[in-house]
Amino acid sequence: MTQELVEKLRELLGNDGVLTAEETAQRSAGFLRADTLQARALARPKTTDEVAAVLRLCSQARCPVVTQGGLTGLVHGADCTPDHLILSLERMNCIEEIDPMQRVAVVQAGVTLQALHDALERHDLAFPLDLGARGSATIGGNVATNAGGNRVIRYGMTRTMVLGVEAVLADGTILSSLNRMIKNNAGYDLKQLFIGSEGTLGVITRVVLRLAERPRSQNVAFVALSGFDAVTGFLKHMDRTLGGTLSAFEVMWREFYELVTTPPAASTPPLPHGSAYYVLVEALGADQEHDAARFINALEAASEAGLIADAVVAGSDRERAAIWAMRDDVMQIARHGWPFTFDVSLPIATMEAYVAGVRGELAARWPDHHCWLFGHLGDGNLHLAVHTGDAADRESVERIVYEPLKAIGGSISAEHGVGLEKKPYLHLSRSPQEIALMRTLKNALDPNGLLNPGKIF
Amino acid sequence: MTQELVEKLRELLGNDGVLTAEETAQRSAGFLRADTLQARALARPKTTDEVAAVLRLCSQARCPVVTQGGLTGLVHGADCTPDHLILSLERMNCIEEIDPMQRVAVVQAGVTLQALHDALERHDLAFPLDLGARGSATIGGNVATNAGGNRVIRYGMTRTMVLGVEAVLADGTILSSLNRMIKNNAGYDLKQLFIGSEGTLGVITRVVLRLAERPRSQNVAFVALSGFDAVTGFLKHMDRTLGGTLSAFEVMWREFYELVTTPPAASTPPLPHGSAYYVLVEALGADQEHDAARFINALEAASEAGLIADAVVAGSDRERAAIWAMRDDVMQIARHGWPFTFDVSLPIATMEAYVAGVRGELAARWPDHHCWLFGHLGDGNLHLAVHTGDAADRESVERIVYEPLKAIGGSISAEHGVGLEKKPYLHLSRSPQEIALMRTLKNALDPNGLLNPGKIF
Repeated sequence: MTQELVEKLRELLGNDGVLTAEETAQRSAGFLRADTLQARALARPKTTDEVAAVLRLCSQARCPVVTQGGLTGLVHGADCTPDHLILSLERMNCIEEIDPMQRVAVVQAGVTLQALHDALERHDLAFPLDLGARGSATIGGNVATNAGGNRVIRYGMTRTMVLGVEAVLADGTILSSLNRMIKNNAGYDLKQLFIGSEGTLGVITRVVLRLAERPRSQNVAFVALSGFDAVTGFLKHMDRTLGGTLSAFEVMWREFYELVTTPPAASTPPLPHGSAYYVLVEALGADQEHDAARFINALEAASEAGLIADAVVAGSDRERAAIWAMRDDVMQIARHGWPFTFDVSLPIATMEAYVAGVRGELAARWPDHHCWLFGHLGDGNLHLAVHTGDAADRESVERIVYEPLKAIGGSISAEHGVGLEKKPYLHLSRSPQEIALMRTLKNALDPNGLLNPGKIF
Repeated sequence: MTQELVEKLRELLGNDGVLTAEETAQRSAGFLRADTLQARALARPKTTDEVAAVLRLCSQARCPVVTQGGLTGLVHGADCTPDHLILSLERMNCIEEIDPMQRVAVVQAGVTLQALHDALERHDLAFPLDLGARGSATIGGNVATNAGGNRVIRYGMTRTMVLGVEAVLADGTILSSLNRMIKNNAGYDLKQLFIGSEGTLGVITRVVLRLAERPRSQNVAFVALSGFDAVTGFLKHMDRTLGGTLSAFEVMWREFYELVTTPPAASTPPLPHGSAYYVLVEALGADQEHDAARFINALEAASEAGLIADAVVAGSDRERAAIWAMRDDVMQIARHGWPFTFDVSLPIATMEAYVAGVRGELAARWPDHHCWLFGHLGDGNLHLAVHTGDAADRESVERIVYEPLKAIGGSISAEHGVGLEKKPYLHLSRSPQEIALMRTLKNALDPNGLLNPGKIF
């Protein structure tokens, strides 16, 4: 059975278009993973028509298919088993068009985020999605997981940047919805089905992305605050005062700040340790001189209003990069061994009590634990890293972190998706009616359950 | 049969919760319509549970249901027949919550856009959706049709402003997805199904909306340009130079400008007639003094670059309102009798040739016709009004306007939706595969076809 499918795939894609199970097992299973890919085979189509033909073959053979991009996901959303065929979009990595007037890019799903950023620089345009895994993460993966990142407060999630999608359905039907306009209300907006559904409803092959003019000014400050009310007040103040240019509002709880500014971390602390909260605030605009003056005025007003305790404004590109590098040095959380990591969202008004509750439970059970908190506060998005020293504590920690979210309307996944990792907790964020409707959609689009089986619900 | 259903509805909703066919026929069928509502009855539930009970009754009786909001749609998207029950959300008009910290509003579907705007003013917050019908159009209708409006270039369509939706499915299931966070990737984003599907997949009962801080500065200019390349160059220039504050870019072709600035129109022309194009450009920011200086600098640079031929900058709230009033005086197109009106979108690069082609065909067939053009150029959205003097010409004019869109990837509906009016032309903007998938979704969610039957496809 497997051999027959592999033979047919070879006929279709050529010898270098198919990796056997043995060849596939040479490849890493992904970012931060020690294991390798276990699958029947790995198919590497070069065109949408080839993807469609692969899916028709798999549909006939009832072979489950796991689509893979850059393997930078964090929730086991692209995991496979020896029964699965891996469909890799790695050879569909062409930026087909950049249109500076319409301000759209048409790209194949396998293009990396970094490659798109590089190409746009030459056109003085920007694709505002940005995240740490940019060098490996693909546009197809970003769209399939509705990736977030640092500038969601200004530009939204990936969903808001996608104008059109070409996807192949489980039966091999090519659905080409490559819309280029910001407004198109001609019937159901089908692309929304594929965005954020983690490869369970179709295989994304091409995407039309909305671009922005490249910002010409960047202002960054790092601020210390003494209480959570000050943090939320400062967010509102900056958003109002900067009039649409606020692009990042990254909060660090004190333990995280100390972690990323003490050796072996490379960063030195731009402000003294000891405050309760620290915020990296950024504005992107069009005129460095005017925007810098406005940015500093906004900070001075925040200081006069008693919102912020201390602040440092980056005075050069080097200083701006240094502050961002400190924020992005999240690998420091592995200092004592790899911790349990979480990506949740919750209403801002509930955040302080939620954090206190989680910390209280952690401290009661593991007096020597570490808990680092940081996140995109403007989006309600909190990242937690918890280290207890024992991998067997995972489920207990998960319950402590996830279970309180149900009562406060929070989400077990802000931006990472569900995959296999969060599937046991989906019921905390979604009602039985919602999960039933997800199943209805899955059954309607993929009645044999062949696309990324077992993920999400 | 009808009498039995009406009796059951009365038991459920009380006497004043149900209008008979005769009472319903006293009501106008909507904006700009001479006819009245013809239906079996009109139900006016007050709660989501009542909506669910109505839909369960209708499901049992196999009675088709047309949900109605403010009846301001322009594509016969809420039309009904004597076989239909009208479900009006007019008594679900409560603004349930405004949260200034999370910056969300929770509203029932029957709240009018104007009522929400008024309520937000007290909190110094804004809901950026705005359109001419704001006094009657309801939030439920705005969401069901994914309404656009004047500031899409900055804030996006309604879809981007919706965080959560509560909807009732055809079988009476209440689907409560009242998410409040900007980031929530816990499974499929089910609200997307109901946004823009024109009441065919569920009845929207409550919505969580994302709010913005109220802008503190508004700068408006009116500009004359000599060619289409200058218009597109000016758009790019302003968007880049204003660094995220550009909020409207409304283009008028010369005939439309002359129409809205000659008696009986109330507006006097702020710039001489005779240029090929005119643009209303607006920026919303945070500091009137600084923003005005930047706005004027941007216009001066555009003038020096030869992009614009003439400009007037509004110097007061009164002048800003006057320029907007001129743009919004679209009822002038009825000067010679009601014309055929269109709402299409297309890639900007194809717009000049498209307009020339449409005009050529109109002129060849109706030498005395009128054709007025205006639109939201930044969104690729063009409105046309064509007057031939004979209502029987409708289909011929529709073909001239719609058919060229297929080859250039345009849309027969930018922001108005499809309803019944554009249904015959949907195949020009959507492929057979796309329409088949729309049917798959419809069958999965509403297998008996009871919700807003016959609309879209």
